[in-house]
Amino acid sequence: MTVPNRNTLWGRAVAEELARAGVDGVCVCPGSRSTPLTVAVDAHDDLTVYSHLDERSAAFFALGRGKRTGEPTAVVTTSGTATANLHPAVMEANQARVPLLVLTADRPPELRDSGANQTVDQQKLYGDAVRHYRDLPEPEADDRKLRSLRTAVCRAVGETTGANPGPVHLNAPFRKPLEPTEVPGDVPEGFADDHPLAASGRDGRPFVSVDHALATPRASTLDALADAAGNADRGLLVAGPDDGGLSADAASALADATGFPLFADPLSDLRFGPHVADAPVVGGYDGLLATDAPALDPEPEFVLRFGASPTSKPLRKALAASDARQVVVDPAGEWREAEFTAADLVVADPDETARALADRVESGPGAWTERVLDREADYWQTVAAFEPDAFLEGDVSRVVAADAPDPATVFVSNSMPVRDFDRFAEPRSADLTVLGNRGASGIDGVVSSALGAGSATDEPLVVLTGDLAYYHDSNGLLALERCGVDATVVLVNNDGGGIFHMLPIESFDPPFTGQFKTPHGLDFAPTGDTYDLEFARVESVDGFRTAYRDSVGAPGTQVIEVETDAAASHRERERLQSAVGER
Amino acid sequence: MTVPNRNTLWGRAVAEELARAGVDGVCVCPGSRSTPLTVAVDAHDDLTVYSHLDERSAAFFALGRGKRTGEPTAVVTTSGTATANLHPAVMEANQARVPLLVLTADRPPELRDSGANQTVDQQKLYGDAVRHYRDLPEPEADDRKLRSLRTAVCRAVGETTGANPGPVHLNAPFRKPLEPTEVPGDVPEGFADDHPLAASGRDGRPFVSVDHALATPRASTLDALADAAGNADRGLLVAGPDDGGLSADAASALADATGFPLFADPLSDLRFGPHVADAPVVGGYDGLLATDAPALDPEPEFVLRFGASPTSKPLRKALAASDARQVVVDPAGEWREAEFTAADLVVADPDETARALADRVESGPGAWTERVLDREADYWQTVAAFEPDAFLEGDVSRVVAADAPDPATVFVSNSMPVRDFDRFAEPRSADLTVLGNRGASGIDGVVSSALGAGSATDEPLVVLTGDLAYYHDSNGLLALERCGVDATVVLVNNDGGGIFHMLPIESFDPPFTGQFKTPHGLDFAPTGDTYDLEFARVESVDGFRTAYRDSVGAPGTQVIEVETDAAASHRERERLQSAVGER
Repeated sequence: MTVPNRNTLWGRAVAEELARAGVDGVCVCPGSRSTPLTVAVDAHDDLTVYSHLDERSAAFFALGRGKRTGEPTAVVTTSGTATANLHPAVMEANQARVPLLVLTADRPPELRDSGANQTVDQQKLYGDAVRHYRDLPEPEADDRKLRSLRTAVCRAVGETTGANPGPVHLNAPFRKPLEPTEVPGDVPEGFADDHPLAASGRDGRPFVSVDHALATPRASTLDALADAAGNADRGLLVAGPDDGGLSADAASALADATGFPLFADPLSDLRFGPHVADAPVVGGYDGLLATDAPALDPEPEFVLRFGASPTSKPLRKALAASDARQVVVDPAGEWREAEFTAADLVVADPDETARALADRVESGPGAWTERVLDREADYWQTVAAFEPDAFLEGDVSRVVAADAPDPATVFVSNSMPVRDFDRFAEPRSADLTVLGNRGASGIDGVVSSALGAGSATDEPLVVLTGDLAYYHDSNGLLALERCGVDATVVLVNNDGGGIFHMLPIESFDPPFTGQFKTPHGLDFAPTGDTYDLEFARVESVDGFRTAYRDSVGAPGTQVIEVETDAAASHRERERLQSAVGER
Repeated sequence: MTVPNRNTLWGRAVAEELARAGVDGVCVCPGSRSTPLTVAVDAHDDLTVYSHLDERSAAFFALGRGKRTGEPTAVVTTSGTATANLHPAVMEANQARVPLLVLTADRPPELRDSGANQTVDQQKLYGDAVRHYRDLPEPEADDRKLRSLRTAVCRAVGETTGANPGPVHLNAPFRKPLEPTEVPGDVPEGFADDHPLAASGRDGRPFVSVDHALATPRASTLDALADAAGNADRGLLVAGPDDGGLSADAASALADATGFPLFADPLSDLRFGPHVADAPVVGGYDGLLATDAPALDPEPEFVLRFGASPTSKPLRKALAASDARQVVVDPAGEWREAEFTAADLVVADPDETARALADRVESGPGAWTERVLDREADYWQTVAAFEPDAFLEGDVSRVVAADAPDPATVFVSNSMPVRDFDRFAEPRSADLTVLGNRGASGIDGVVSSALGAGSATDEPLVVLTGDLAYYHDSNGLLALERCGVDATVVLVNNDGGGIFHMLPIESFDPPFTGQFKTPHGLDFAPTGDTYDLEFARVESVDGFRTAYRDSVGAPGTQVIEVETDAAASHRERERLQSAVGER
């Protein structure tokens, strides 16, 4: 092995350890200071490089990919404001517990705070939003330093996963020459032979393998929970948004043993899948609980909650109003229940807890559960039978879920799409992986996150987005071609922030139209020319269904724009709610 | 005054103090949590609201506006990832010392760390990148709290300016209702009458007026500097990029008194302006010093440096190689000389220092200065006479500067545009305000920063950008219509990172083309349809000159795309350098 200089040696060690520790994708943004990293990851056979020109999009792409795979995707950027552009995705990865490894190149220490070009303070740039931060040592052909470097990279990858997955930041200073140009003596001749461990690491396996323990709940805790669940006539399992949380098998076993219905958030990975054929999965609660009629009457006595706080506000409010004993299971020991009515926090692995509990309980579904399931069936019949007078945006979500291929990955934007999807996407036994950025619930980075998720699978990819999210991350569309991802992008265009029609601010105009609704009049059709994709506009649910079915089976990327009137859609949504309530 | 609830009271107080403290523009991004602020700034007669849909663009717009005016423009966002999208502009504002006031809405303290929707840790979000941070108190109709709030807002505005202007972050928690809905008893009847100072502040003036002292250099320091300058046969004034630093009057007086030539960075605000007719302004140093011939032969003995580190690498390297005594004048007392050859740091106001020094020195221009000025004249003749075999990108910069209207505001992107502008933009006595984001030198936010600058002036606005910067912030083009700005956008499209042709990585391919040059093949013409602007492509310098002259005098926005070959242009650039060297 000839190594032209210390930076090349350094970059190679980083790339080797990334690959050996399990990273298989790296998003790279062009830049000079990061050259040693870029050269090394580009040259490594086991790393797929995804080249991005906007760092914000790059980081969201990596986030989406990590969300889909459960393993970190790395991001490499140069120094300066490039690093700050990653902050939104880092924040989301923190909140949503998505593994993400950020590698920022930095100027060497002697140039910091000196006014040197593109030199900013990158130390702990993302504050408490990362699980782990390291300023890597300055490159040098030194035995111990290289072992330290390899250890640091492996540990960083390890810190992105475990009970509380999330983002990790490594800051890597480099001084010139950054390119693999020969620097005589920089790496002494024979260095690799003399220091094989430092120079080459451990062949075929990571320098340090990081193994996370499984948080198994104590027997006494399980006994107490089993007791409470067994004694409850009316019990409920609630699965909130979660990446890689409770599995369908464990959830089904628990539902079967307890006889409790399973309220499955669309982002819980439990609303869709083969288990739906047998398990008491409920998806209509958002619509049911939004009516004035008390849908959970009588109230549940016992609620076991998994995952993050549910997307459904009616559900959160119903649980807050109930006297039920609520138990939150969270592997990271965080508190994710903002109504503060839960009384127990079980810090343990959700799957372990559910399975162990299922082994300890033996009840059947009671009358209450039957009633809930009847209402669920009624709800979906009402939704299917409803004939709106104007375009109901929720119908798009309904069709997206119902007509998605099996299997498929569906990425849903925040704001109205995820709320509509929550209310209108009926549980199916198809293997749909539904994802969304529900950590901080921003509308930024939606396109990129979706394409990142799509890059990790051969399944058809569907992206459901609104016009503001589409605009916000239109730069992300560049990944379609550069990263070789195909998608069906469903763009619900209501010309601005339709969600604000649901808030009291609607009745204060001004400033409602100018500052909240913000109609922009943007014509998105030209994005078809810019990003070389097919752009089609549809005007009816039937038209949408046809275009959607055609697209999900076709190669390439199709954007299907559905133009709607948010105010009219909101009124129809309310009218449907009345119908649900009456029923 | 009827105030429906405490949030309304709070928002009004913030808006009032912003306006009274001198803020006249607020960039607002739609969001729910920020409703009390949005409603208040929208309703205030003395605040102009600039509505943006992408927070990253909003913050850069505010940055550009603050850069042009010298006063802070505020940015209002909702909670969550919206806040992280401001980080790149906050970082740039910190580095470039641009006043910027960030107001982020936050969830109330009881919802933090609870998994509540869109709730993230916004405490000290930008770390050390802001001059000042405050978590505002929770809204309440309380006399002392309101006085505290008004004081905090005035102080925040004050902290954005002074000797070290920069970004300030106020984090404002609100709980529902966020809209101006009536909450009986929330603001007790008669509160405004009983507490006029708290409820209404000081009519017509800020609640607290913040006054910054002038950092006047000590007489002994001035005497010593005057002595050194007076005794130097070969002296140099160097003005680096600076926002609101050394004035043309003071610089001219100093140049006149010392007889030293003034090397004026294009971003120093000294390369262009009426003073150029009389003062010994030198703009050709980048090209002159890039030759092998020792252009500063004999070397200067004494160098007085103002502003940030010069854009010109040849100049920085020439100064580093010289034995001259170098004095850095910096009002903030920071070290902005990354070669570490300067020996004196004078922490004082640049204008005060220059004027006081001019009063103490009386030399005329010596033979050395004459020689420098002769070379300067020669240089520009060589540039004008050069006939490239392929399109020289520098010719675009040359024309942009030479044919800009008088007055005009010219915003120049980082990467190649500012380097070309440095080398090819000849000093002119026209009143050109040339701006660029040279703090962290990123290519992000260029469009928005430029349009923000343009929003603050009636002068024609010219934006000189490359294709990557244009792509990176294409969202910013929405401000053309939404914020009522017209511009001439000169887009030098060399299909990727042309600047990398200037770096050694060019000879390593792969990964050069795939990861550095990154040709994207993007067709930017459709942005014309999306953003309702005129898009024209030109292929020759003459064609460009004609389109440019037409545009700068016309209403509306024209994008003039110049397609170039970066590699060929770089070779021509080198050929011109040889011609300069030979001469």
